[in-house]
Amino acid sequence: MSQELRAVEWARDGLWLIDQTALPGRLERLRVETVDALVDAIQRLVVRGAPAIGAAGAYGVVLAALQAEREGWDRTALLAAVSRIREARPTAVNLAVCVDRVLPLLDRGREAALTEAHAVQREDERANRAMGAYGADWLVKRVAADRPLRLLTHCNTGALATAGWGTALGVVRELHARGLVEVVYADETRPLLQGSRLTAWELAHEGIPHYVQADGAAAGTILRGEVDAAIVGADRVAANGDTANKVGTVGVALACADAGIPFLVAAPTTTVDLATGSGADIHIELRDEREVLEWGGVRTAPAASRGHNPAFDVTPGRLVTALVTERGVLEVAAGQLPGEHLA
Amino acid sequence: MSQELRAVEWARDGLWLIDQTALPGRLERLRVETVDALVDAIQRLVVRGAPAIGAAGAYGVVLAALQAEREGWDRTALLAAVSRIREARPTAVNLAVCVDRVLPLLDRGREAALTEAHAVQREDERANRAMGAYGADWLVKRVAADRPLRLLTHCNTGALATAGWGTALGVVRELHARGLVEVVYADETRPLLQGSRLTAWELAHEGIPHYVQADGAAAGTILRGEVDAAIVGADRVAANGDTANKVGTVGVALACADAGIPFLVAAPTTTVDLATGSGADIHIELRDEREVLEWGGVRTAPAASRGHNPAFDVTPGRLVTALVTERGVLEVAAGQLPGEHLA
Repeated sequence: MSQELRAVEWARDGLWLIDQTALPGRLERLRVETVDALVDAIQRLVVRGAPAIGAAGAYGVVLAALQAEREGWDRTALLAAVSRIREARPTAVNLAVCVDRVLPLLDRGREAALTEAHAVQREDERANRAMGAYGADWLVKRVAADRPLRLLTHCNTGALATAGWGTALGVVRELHARGLVEVVYADETRPLLQGSRLTAWELAHEGIPHYVQADGAAAGTILRGEVDAAIVGADRVAANGDTANKVGTVGVALACADAGIPFLVAAPTTTVDLATGSGADIHIELRDEREVLEWGGVRTAPAASRGHNPAFDVTPGRLVTALVTERGVLEVAAGQLPGEHLA
Repeated sequence: MSQELRAVEWARDGLWLIDQTALPGRLERLRVETVDALVDAIQRLVVRGAPAIGAAGAYGVVLAALQAEREGWDRTALLAAVSRIREARPTAVNLAVCVDRVLPLLDRGREAALTEAHAVQREDERANRAMGAYGADWLVKRVAADRPLRLLTHCNTGALATAGWGTALGVVRELHARGLVEVVYADETRPLLQGSRLTAWELAHEGIPHYVQADGAAAGTILRGEVDAAIVGADRVAANGDTANKVGTVGVALACADAGIPFLVAAPTTTVDLATGSGADIHIELRDEREVLEWGGVRTAPAASRGHNPAFDVTPGRLVTALVTERGVLEVAAGQLPGEHLA
């Protein structure tokens, strides 16, 4: 790839986001000027992916401070604005963690907060590259050292979803750099097609061979023996290894368990929420039913039908063969629980 | 519902199909005049669903005979035309079975063949109503007799998919008639949205409460305990109970097994192919990749991406709690194999 993609970037004294709702048709960068615009961008999925949302939240604190200076907000108004950013989406833990990390620095001034936000972003990318290496090493050792792998992924976990490089897709990129990817099956990821629009776009950008398939095709592809391992990201990992990720993930995990192939979750330790004991404690965002009832604003379902639109599901830790973090690999299903090893 | 839907109907000396590609927007009937038009209608999914395709094939023999008379075909040309109908789609066994049943009657004249095609259709509807009763009785006995059920289905198996009434959806209709349906989760069924367009339309038509959801949502909905049983149709059932059905079905079955709820397949015995030993012998139709790369003719995936588009998957018999036929219920996972009980 010619140039490293930055989903979230602080440049020319302002926050820029790649508008992921316009991909793969157009690569457009959006300048975000206000807290309202940032909350809207997070909720409309202009920026999405737990680590990317975290980075946007970190810079959001600086953005809020700038807007407060410009518009003469008092401290209460500023804190209320930061809270709105912090709560723009409920499932990923990164957003709150990153906001909470940068906010205290504001007491030392806006520049100190900006420096911390840059650190958040830099550390996330560094963590991604470490995960890529750990995950690739694990797959080479456990699946095959001598032939390219057939991988399956769900949703988008690449450079667009993170502060840079990618989590699950970062492992795929590392394997590709080693000449060890035969093909990637990218689930399209309904309702918003992050797989077909974004993952396929990143894979094409990197020259990695891939197929887009319907989400329903994943289990059959796995059971027919056409996949060596599946690897996905996470929005929140509980202490027992239960993993909240894009809706459809647990179906992939069940198929991997049935077929006896590894199901990997790649996520930085910031995604692991040790305060959450199990998946039962994770709040699953229910999004607007129109996402499943319409297509491009045109109704596809009957007018009388209602939609059920959970954005995430929870994969039980017993189905997570390995959790790949920047600190190493935990074999969760075999009993290496995050709550014991990352505390 | 005011009037019983007929996906396939012989009327006014010709074959009429409900154009299922126009639903739920418009209810249109298409008159099919030639073998070419019928093969095209089957391949474009104007008519779809294994039993409906079977009925269309049965009438197709009569249609071919009419065209042969009109255009002066010899017997070889007629048989070639009938073969093209028989092979218009590869996965469902019903099409070939129904064509093979009606074809010999042509020796006794076109009217004898038409009478046999009518019998095919009448018997399918009768079988559906029997399945509805057997399936409902089984669920009442095994799941709950005293409260309405929360059901999940995948793809369309209603009146539109059959010669009348429905297979899996026929069981749902029977339960609804008994006041025993709380809600139906209808998977949208990508890539062609038979669930969102057709099943939801039939459920709305019948006044049955339902939600449309992304296919990826099914496993999570089941694992969260929001579903009492799943029930689907089949395109081909092998002697050992392995079941080919719409892509995405095996993912539903895996989730049901994990959650410990029943996974039912409702299919007439004509769908059971005792000559097919197991799912490994079932040919899975790979359809045009554009179905997963485009939407309404507009490309949604990147130009450089390829698509993987299996139309069906195979659910191992060990995951089929019960096979509901017009002759009764076989508990396949518990060892009641079709090859032993239906031979």
